[in-house]
Amino acid sequence: MSEPEKIEHIPDESAGKGIPNGGNAAKTKEDFDLASIYVSDAQYNRNIYFDTSPQAVRLYLRYNHWIPQVLLYFFILLDLSLAIFEEPAVLLLPIWATMLVELLCLLAFTIRIVHYAKVIPRDKFWKDPKNICIIVIILLTLVDMIIYGALKATNCYGVRWSRVLRPLLLVNVTEGRQLRRAFRSIRNALPQIFYVFLLFMFSLLIFSLMALKLLGKRGLTTIDGSPYFTNYLEIVFDLYVLVTTANSPDVMMPAYNASFYFAIFFILYILINTYIFMSVFLAVVYNNYKYHLKEEVRQLVRSKRHKMVRAFAVLQDQREGEGPVVNQANWNQLVRLVQPDISNAHRELLWSVCDDNNKGYIGKVAFVQLADLLNIEVITLKSRPHPLNSLCPNLYQSAPSRLLCYLVQHRAFVIVYDLIILVNAVFIGLDETNPLIANSEWAFLALYLLEILLKLYVFEPRAFFSRHSFWNWFDTIIVISALIATIINSSVTTAGSYTSRQVLDIVFILRVLRLIRVVDSIKRFRTIINTLIRIGPAILTFGQLIIVVYYIFAMVGMELFKGKVNFYEDSSDPAKAYCGNALLKGTTFAQLNYCRNNFNNVVSSFILLVELTVVNQWHVLSSGFATVTHVSAKLFFVLFHIIVVIIIINIFVAFVLEAFFVEYSLDKSDLQTSLEKKIGELELAVAQETMEDNLVNAMETIDNDQQTGQSSKKTSALMFKIASKRYRTVDALLQRMFEFDLDPEDFAENDDQTNGNFTNPTFSAA
Amino acid sequence: MSEPEKIEHIPDESAGKGIPNGGNAAKTKEDFDLASIYVSDAQYNRNIYFDTSPQAVRLYLRYNHWIPQVLLYFFILLDLSLAIFEEPAVLLLPIWATMLVELLCLLAFTIRIVHYAKVIPRDKFWKDPKNICIIVIILLTLVDMIIYGALKATNCYGVRWSRVLRPLLLVNVTEGRQLRRAFRSIRNALPQIFYVFLLFMFSLLIFSLMALKLLGKRGLTTIDGSPYFTNYLEIVFDLYVLVTTANSPDVMMPAYNASFYFAIFFILYILINTYIFMSVFLAVVYNNYKYHLKEEVRQLVRSKRHKMVRAFAVLQDQREGEGPVVNQANWNQLVRLVQPDISNAHRELLWSVCDDNNKGYIGKVAFVQLADLLNIEVITLKSRPHPLNSLCPNLYQSAPSRLLCYLVQHRAFVIVYDLIILVNAVFIGLDETNPLIANSEWAFLALYLLEILLKLYVFEPRAFFSRHSFWNWFDTIIVISALIATIINSSVTTAGSYTSRQVLDIVFILRVLRLIRVVDSIKRFRTIINTLIRIGPAILTFGQLIIVVYYIFAMVGMELFKGKVNFYEDSSDPAKAYCGNALLKGTTFAQLNYCRNNFNNVVSSFILLVELTVVNQWHVLSSGFATVTHVSAKLFFVLFHIIVVIIIINIFVAFVLEAFFVEYSLDKSDLQTSLEKKIGELELAVAQETMEDNLVNAMETIDNDQQTGQSSKKTSALMFKIASKRYRTVDALLQRMFEFDLDPEDFAENDDQTNGNFTNPTFSAA
Repeated sequence: MSEPEKIEHIPDESAGKGIPNGGNAAKTKEDFDLASIYVSDAQYNRNIYFDTSPQAVRLYLRYNHWIPQVLLYFFILLDLSLAIFEEPAVLLLPIWATMLVELLCLLAFTIRIVHYAKVIPRDKFWKDPKNICIIVIILLTLVDMIIYGALKATNCYGVRWSRVLRPLLLVNVTEGRQLRRAFRSIRNALPQIFYVFLLFMFSLLIFSLMALKLLGKRGLTTIDGSPYFTNYLEIVFDLYVLVTTANSPDVMMPAYNASFYFAIFFILYILINTYIFMSVFLAVVYNNYKYHLKEEVRQLVRSKRHKMVRAFAVLQDQREGEGPVVNQANWNQLVRLVQPDISNAHRELLWSVCDDNNKGYIGKVAFVQLADLLNIEVITLKSRPHPLNSLCPNLYQSAPSRLLCYLVQHRAFVIVYDLIILVNAVFIGLDETNPLIANSEWAFLALYLLEILLKLYVFEPRAFFSRHSFWNWFDTIIVISALIATIINSSVTTAGSYTSRQVLDIVFILRVLRLIRVVDSIKRFRTIINTLIRIGPAILTFGQLIIVVYYIFAMVGMELFKGKVNFYEDSSDPAKAYCGNALLKGTTFAQLNYCRNNFNNVVSSFILLVELTVVNQWHVLSSGFATVTHVSAKLFFVLFHIIVVIIIINIFVAFVLEAFFVEYSLDKSDLQTSLEKKIGELELAVAQETMEDNLVNAMETIDNDQQTGQSSKKTSALMFKIASKRYRTVDALLQRMFEFDLDPEDFAENDDQTNGNFTNPTFSAA
Repeated sequence: MSEPEKIEHIPDESAGKGIPNGGNAAKTKEDFDLASIYVSDAQYNRNIYFDTSPQAVRLYLRYNHWIPQVLLYFFILLDLSLAIFEEPAVLLLPIWATMLVELLCLLAFTIRIVHYAKVIPRDKFWKDPKNICIIVIILLTLVDMIIYGALKATNCYGVRWSRVLRPLLLVNVTEGRQLRRAFRSIRNALPQIFYVFLLFMFSLLIFSLMALKLLGKRGLTTIDGSPYFTNYLEIVFDLYVLVTTANSPDVMMPAYNASFYFAIFFILYILINTYIFMSVFLAVVYNNYKYHLKEEVRQLVRSKRHKMVRAFAVLQDQREGEGPVVNQANWNQLVRLVQPDISNAHRELLWSVCDDNNKGYIGKVAFVQLADLLNIEVITLKSRPHPLNSLCPNLYQSAPSRLLCYLVQHRAFVIVYDLIILVNAVFIGLDETNPLIANSEWAFLALYLLEILLKLYVFEPRAFFSRHSFWNWFDTIIVISALIATIINSSVTTAGSYTSRQVLDIVFILRVLRLIRVVDSIKRFRTIINTLIRIGPAILTFGQLIIVVYYIFAMVGMELFKGKVNFYEDSSDPAKAYCGNALLKGTTFAQLNYCRNNFNNVVSSFILLVELTVVNQWHVLSSGFATVTHVSAKLFFVLFHIIVVIIIINIFVAFVLEAFFVEYSLDKSDLQTSLEKKIGELELAVAQETMEDNLVNAMETIDNDQQTGQSSKKTSALMFKIASKRYRTVDALLQRMFEFDLDPEDFAENDDQTNGNFTNPTFSAA
């Protein structure tokens, strides 16, 4: 690098033109702080309207630091996990202990919100519903704690109702953008879903009325002898359950046994309500989801552009006949601030993409793409010789060593090990009490260890264990864990007659997990798996969403149903047959031994809610809880079904569908292409022919193939590769999903708005 | 019409230029026959490479006549319905009777295929797999009938295996284009699905192995006391069933009762295999479906274009400085031949769209759109005075009569009747043995009759009962049927103490159906219903597909399982408890009283297959049939699940999604717009303001609003309206679905191919 890299050396040429910190004045540390905040906000799509005064900027830098963010999530997790220790508890702690921890959490949230209040202007702070939401949650929780404490002190019955509010913190913290977006998707789809739902309910009521008239007076009975289809509300519930298919042939059998004409009624019902209406629900949810997401992403792109333009305004110099530009030194300083972990080589590469003509400065258009460039993950590969080659080159370069390297890199090596895995799978399936089989385990372990050692001999160790070599890490960890667990297990077994069940379980799990490796060697499978891994982070957002909804339902469910149904470990207890509640005697719930499906603690509640999400037998569960409380308890379960299955699962399916289509159909974005072109021009690219498969991110194998100590075809010691299919942020994936649908004007320059006080798009809290 | 309409009057101007029947020679009847065949083939997207000799053209015209087509479908239906009368039969007929009918059917199919063979060139005939398929089916059926007849004559056991082939006729007849396309969608999606399925199976096997190792040795038992998770194959089956959620909490309960850690194993399994993999299946099926459909529709559009160009070549005249043209007389003659039922006014409208400048002749580009124009459904509305107005105008135009008309057309009239319907719904729900309630039925019937009479007084009767006034027809038919049924019922009841259950059932059904009318008066509901009605015809294709698959599985199932499970009407029979098969004693199948779910005749089989499609409890059914035969019988059920639920239902959902998106997002096509513009120019349009809702096809209401005898705002007695959202053919809907994705060059002229022997896209048989 011959360019000057110190910012002080750049001479001023023209005065500022009303731009904040404008002109060609030497940029101060404050300027760089401000510009780096704009860039990093643009990079991560943060939409925070912060104060631009130097103190506020410093506070904001601290606010965005990873330590307070991790701490915040730690305290949210702690707050949520208090449910494990509170009445009804898995592990009951005294009230003062949980209360103390909760106070601590509230304190942490208060500190965080006060910090936030100091960063952004006062009027903006009070206009943002998510801040008000957090403050209200904190206050309500305090009130509830005081009331509950007082009631407990006087031995009265109290309900910790504020626990329902806890998961809302997860939604309303600044970092919960993805989650808020998911909630907004749902809220936006609601009006459309509502009308389809009404029509569906109308159809349900009409069919129920018909069923009542046709079947009610025939004196039919169900298997347990109760009258069949005589009560209108029960018919409505039964037919609602039939839509979920949970009572599919059973509800029809008495009528079908009477005459097969009635089967036509039920088939028609299922066709209309299960197949047509449920497809329409998915279509409506998907359609709304796509439409509103597109709108939001358009807004995101626009606000990102604005932020980059502001950063440019802060760092710009005036240059004769060129207009405002940013020179390389300032740019380097900025990139170092925004992303301290970026390598010099990588930074130079990015600069050469921006400054295509080697002018030493870039204009606004080139500058604005920086945020997107930083989001493209570039892997810097350093071609290092194998350490053994450096230690004793004669031995490592000898003919047998070269042959070994050739063999290990050959396709047959992979096939041989795949066959070993298959044989291993058969051995695992066989009875392990047979001593031959038990001892074979050592042989397999040795073979797997040998494989890893051979690969380490052939490939450069640091490349073998590079950050992106998922399967290498997976292999090594699994094999070494299995080795340790097997040794512990056999030493425990030989030491005494006692075999630890836990250790054995771990050994079994590790053995079976080892087999998964075979997936990686079949290209088609790798394609599918990679696609799944890529949409994984976005699926995690839905995981959070589900946890929020589950937590609220679990808290309400625990208050409503705790202790009503009990599970007895001791199988000799007579109460076991009816779950400790005489009301359940003879019900399907007790007959199917569902006693453990209860709301007696938060873990049981979550497992029960998963079962309700899977839908099957949910009517048995809801009838069980209705039996021990009141028939209206079924409403709780129907509400859960509507919210989770009809709405959230459909949005989940819509998301997976959309993400899959994007993965299948989209080529790389323009920026990535220009970056790749530059890498190619600089002759730093990893051989292209290994990347022909546009779905397979063949990176791992490329890492290895290129890094062998033996082959040194490349002249340059440094190589780049774009991890084109990885997304640093979920936003980047979303923007990619819609970038072809966006209007071109969103990418056009909006100079007139640059110096104005552009408004951040306000995203209301969910 | 001042233009000459007789083709003989057009003078020749230039000689033919190597075009078949080219030049300006007076067009013969043969020319018109040929051109009309091309146009009608283009209109209905038939891809038949027929011989262009006059005899073959005449034969082909006869081949496409509706009578032989209806006859063909009648014989196919007859052939398929033979299963009702054959062993195992619903109504057993002697073998000679069914054999005779089947021979008759085969004869009909043979005549049809011979006819087809005479229409198209010999080499084309033998190259088309669907013809060969039909011939093979006919021959195999004959062979099977002879063998079966011989075996029966010697009292041996015979299997009518050729019955499996019967539904394939439905696929391979010339008219089964839609069905063949649906099968092609499936076949094209198979390779992609296959790899996902393999990965899914791998995951299933790995999880099963882990389950065996973790749970097999713990000595757990299921509710019925059998060992839990000890046999690998049974685990695989149980976990496969878990993917379908059919045994959801039950399969988990023994492990969950032992320790809640095992619940995590099952939750993880459901998450990966049920949610992720099933979504991926849908995504892959949907993606492939979209991709291949697009390709096919592109091909269809191209071949339609070619056919129209050929028709143009047949009818063209040479005109100085204009190139080849078709004059209005020839065009009129052609349209009359292609669509004899078209009104003169409609034809003139179409001509004025094509001949935009009133030149009296049109070029190739204008001619080619004829096929699409004919596919746009234009409703000709004739503004006729009310017959009462003609009979006694004084009375009909009097103030009370006008007030009555005003009231009936008022919004409040609809609301009042909606309220009456609601009250009626409550009365239906109440006990009809109460005499007050029973008599109220007469009042409601009178009110509904009054409504119809009032509407007939206000609206012109022919407009009220026009072809597209679905709800008017619905109302009238339901009310009059209900009146007749109620009269019959009450006369039967008063005549004796005997009440006919059947008549009463019909009365109840009609009463409840009457309530559906309320949907029409809520605009949002009408929107959704109209969308559903519009995608209805396409859904029927999937209905055919399902019937083909069901029929094949029913035939196989009947051979495998007939008589194994029996249903006893008589509840006192002790064999009823175990379905007449001692092997079923104590099984869940018998306990749940599933005896009627059997393969003992074709109707039971179909109902059972529907239950399997709905998925719930399919494992109980399959285990039941495995118990009475062999454990491998489960394969039959698993295969059915894979084919019907994983593949066909997913394609169905993909279709509904895509059709919905098209409905939501697409505006009218260009051609429709130009047609509408022309209608507007000619001041023949129905008032536009009533059509603002782009989703509601407000036609029915417009029909009524515009056709009142009173209001005569319009000057013209004739009005047109485009039934823009109705598709004459499924192909038209499909083309519309993809027309925006099609390359523009598909619509470009391909003159060089015009005179060459363009190849029809060959669509192989499924």
